[in-house]
Amino acid sequence: MGLTLYDTTLRDGSQGEGIALSLDDKLKITRQLDRFGIDFIEGGWPGSNPKDEAYFKEVQNMDLDNAKITAFSSSRRPNMKVEEDPNILKLLDSGVEYVTIFSKSWDLHVQEALQISLAENLAMIKDTISFLKENDLRVFFDAEHFFDGYFNNSNYALEVIKTAAEAGAELLVLCDTNGGMLPSQVTKVMQEIRGKFEVPIGIHAHNDGNLAVANSLAAYEEGAVHFQGTVGGLGERCGNADLCSVIPALQLKYGEELVTAEQLKQLKPLYYFVTETANLIPKNNKPYVGKSAFTHKGGIHVSAVRKNPHTYEHIEPELVGNERRVLVSELAGKSNLLYKLREVGFDLNDFSDEMIKKLVKKVKVLENQGYQFEGAEASLILMAFREFKDYQSFFEIEDFKTNSISQEDHTYSEAVVKMNVKKQKVHIAADGDGPVNALDNCFRKALVSFYPEISESKLIDYKVRVLNGNDGTAAKVRVLIETADLEKSWTTVGVSTNIIQASWDALVDSIEYLLLIKEGARII
Amino acid sequence: MGLTLYDTTLRDGSQGEGIALSLDDKLKITRQLDRFGIDFIEGGWPGSNPKDEAYFKEVQNMDLDNAKITAFSSSRRPNMKVEEDPNILKLLDSGVEYVTIFSKSWDLHVQEALQISLAENLAMIKDTISFLKENDLRVFFDAEHFFDGYFNNSNYALEVIKTAAEAGAELLVLCDTNGGMLPSQVTKVMQEIRGKFEVPIGIHAHNDGNLAVANSLAAYEEGAVHFQGTVGGLGERCGNADLCSVIPALQLKYGEELVTAEQLKQLKPLYYFVTETANLIPKNNKPYVGKSAFTHKGGIHVSAVRKNPHTYEHIEPELVGNERRVLVSELAGKSNLLYKLREVGFDLNDFSDEMIKKLVKKVKVLENQGYQFEGAEASLILMAFREFKDYQSFFEIEDFKTNSISQEDHTYSEAVVKMNVKKQKVHIAADGDGPVNALDNCFRKALVSFYPEISESKLIDYKVRVLNGNDGTAAKVRVLIETADLEKSWTTVGVSTNIIQASWDALVDSIEYLLLIKEGARII
Repeated sequence: MGLTLYDTTLRDGSQGEGIALSLDDKLKITRQLDRFGIDFIEGGWPGSNPKDEAYFKEVQNMDLDNAKITAFSSSRRPNMKVEEDPNILKLLDSGVEYVTIFSKSWDLHVQEALQISLAENLAMIKDTISFLKENDLRVFFDAEHFFDGYFNNSNYALEVIKTAAEAGAELLVLCDTNGGMLPSQVTKVMQEIRGKFEVPIGIHAHNDGNLAVANSLAAYEEGAVHFQGTVGGLGERCGNADLCSVIPALQLKYGEELVTAEQLKQLKPLYYFVTETANLIPKNNKPYVGKSAFTHKGGIHVSAVRKNPHTYEHIEPELVGNERRVLVSELAGKSNLLYKLREVGFDLNDFSDEMIKKLVKKVKVLENQGYQFEGAEASLILMAFREFKDYQSFFEIEDFKTNSISQEDHTYSEAVVKMNVKKQKVHIAADGDGPVNALDNCFRKALVSFYPEISESKLIDYKVRVLNGNDGTAAKVRVLIETADLEKSWTTVGVSTNIIQASWDALVDSIEYLLLIKEGARII
Repeated sequence: MGLTLYDTTLRDGSQGEGIALSLDDKLKITRQLDRFGIDFIEGGWPGSNPKDEAYFKEVQNMDLDNAKITAFSSSRRPNMKVEEDPNILKLLDSGVEYVTIFSKSWDLHVQEALQISLAENLAMIKDTISFLKENDLRVFFDAEHFFDGYFNNSNYALEVIKTAAEAGAELLVLCDTNGGMLPSQVTKVMQEIRGKFEVPIGIHAHNDGNLAVANSLAAYEEGAVHFQGTVGGLGERCGNADLCSVIPALQLKYGEELVTAEQLKQLKPLYYFVTETANLIPKNNKPYVGKSAFTHKGGIHVSAVRKNPHTYEHIEPELVGNERRVLVSELAGKSNLLYKLREVGFDLNDFSDEMIKKLVKKVKVLENQGYQFEGAEASLILMAFREFKDYQSFFEIEDFKTNSISQEDHTYSEAVVKMNVKKQKVHIAADGDGPVNALDNCFRKALVSFYPEISESKLIDYKVRVLNGNDGTAAKVRVLIETADLEKSWTTVGVSTNIIQASWDALVDSIEYLLLIKEGARII
């Protein structure tokens, strides 16, 4: 058996705190996982709840390129005939070709948690797997708590997986369910069981010790050929092994081919897709796929990386669909700001040395106030242009206001904006779902007849971060707005103790930046 | 030399994207690290910027229990006499007893990044360390890029650390600066150099492969006695080795005593302290110290953990200052909700089985709409009480409104609330820093004469999360408010497309919950 990847984002992953995937979410993620090259997608547990059952029904209508959908389940209930267990029968109805059965391999669990005999547990495993095989299903076996079980009672742990293999399981997946194993412990166990079974061995690690990826690789080094995990390491407690770290390690460092090179470039997009679909915030410092994974801040690093990327990058970011970034911050200086301006296409001949120095200083001052231009490059560019005494903006705002009024259980918001555009006075009102949406609608309404290109762009993301939470509702707030038109997207920032003011500033920047690009910088 | 811990949160950690520590922040963190039992605290690089220099001046006034402050620096500049290098001279003025000098040990860096000869690099190391020793400083040597250097040119890498040792370095810290090493590679290198030097070996790993903790432990297994990292794994790109994972592993799994058991219980508080001081959001799924690290969601897990915690916990959470938590969610059922209600002290005899079932259903419905009661237990309790037909609230809100008006560059907000309290009509107005602050001030102003206990509580944290960022400013927003009085704190939630409505709902819950506890549930 070649190496295979098994994704349990939809099942184990969804057990993480704060994660709730709708049926539609699950189907979309399934599509992306299949395109990426995942071999097995664990869709859920048909017998456990209606949403999981519905998934298995719907997924049969999807035309997948490569991935096989697997159904997850416990073995039959204790002291019940397998053919009478409704949970097992649901597996037969689920329409899958593959089933993953999990059972206890640690005597403590069998006796204290399940409160059954060690022999009954083995019978449950044997009966369930045999029954599924008789019904033409292919079976993988997840040996729950295998490593803890092995260290406490190795005979029983081995008996469990032997029983599963003899009953027809095609794969024995050893699980570090509590997530507390050390890599050297995984290595030891794998070395001792290697060669004892003809059935291939897989690994399912949890990250409670911050070692799930290491444990997966330790298992690989001792012959494991099947790797379970989730995208981004989602999951119960500290999560499952992060496939976004396991896959590039196996492929780029150990030289295995799990997916094609083209598919591997979709790793970062896959991470963002799954994270956003699960309504989570992508982690910037996530290895391989995080926004900051190849981001250089210290001046020395930036300077070295520009000479030879290998000096500070362990792999080429493009291989996993990521990119190198350089930050402007108090640690860096002139070279980072220049890099940034050049990166967005501005002609640096317009900026004198004196100008650049002044800008770098201003960035530091604003950052001390809570601004962060990292990730809000459009606001940075605008600031660079506003420093030119001669730069003329496209509009002049006189004032704005917004009201929110509750009626019964609904709150209505309205905004009014007064501004001057192309020497004309404009006074506009608009409604919205909230005060910021009302301001956004109003501002665009005011400008669109003068600058029709505004209608091509729309706000696609709105993020609020309270900077000093301890000051409660009087704290400074930082708003980031991401806007996109047909070709690209850009991010702008606003900071204030007043969330309306902060949102307004970011909104104004978002439109002004668009006009700056479309209309060209107006420097008199 | 016994095992020692070296924290570089203030230096390497602060190179992470989005992290900017003020002088005061650094001093506060220093105090906490010292109390925790960290042996060495790398305060910064005196020659690099005025803020770092100021730190070394101020920290001399602190009376530390145990920790030694170290100053970080490169070796002397190429082709310059060490005694004439202002950067090195600043080290002498910094007032520290210990200095950590870093230099290249990878020939690629020496020749391409620094563009100097291999011999000059060695001379820089020798001159710098000798000079510092002559000036009565104790020196640690950070061999930058050691592992990459060793695999590319092992002779040179060894020559580098030999030079450092001979010049008087007391510790040779091998750095995986690019963060791309595999644990088996670290093991191999450590095995080959073990015993070659009398000077103890330390490890400084980066997390680009998601393997920094594993690499630190691999080094430990092959004789490393000194561990560098940051609290929570902060740092450039994907961060440094997370001391919050390394320390409990060494102490609880390998049986080493690095800090006292009492100090180890401060691990989670240390993580929260550093994270909040650095203005970052604590990660719930962080191993050992995250809020979710010992949080059980699946019904089976909850049921097993209540019988025996070892079934799903690899260590006892209390050992690291953490706690077990149980979630109410769609995956769980009646038992989780009961656990939660009991946990906050409510008498479950008031709730019939029928009631509980209805509540569990309602939770699932609301969660589908974006509510999350995980972490907002006060709103959950209130919902449980509101289900009682006979529960009478402490106030009845008629309506509220808020205006925000910009004048010049400042935005003023005002709120007006109309409500009935104890059969009296109340109509109140108040100002605020923003619309939500104005509503908060108004609501409290309206109630405080009826319920004076309200003045004991105050809002301590306000979090906004946009649920479907793709809908831009029209997206649903979830607001979490944390309120505290002198004894405890509680969290409430509000969800709406209108941020004002969402904030208002969370505010109302926050006060109503306080009254519920103080005045007692009024069930007629």
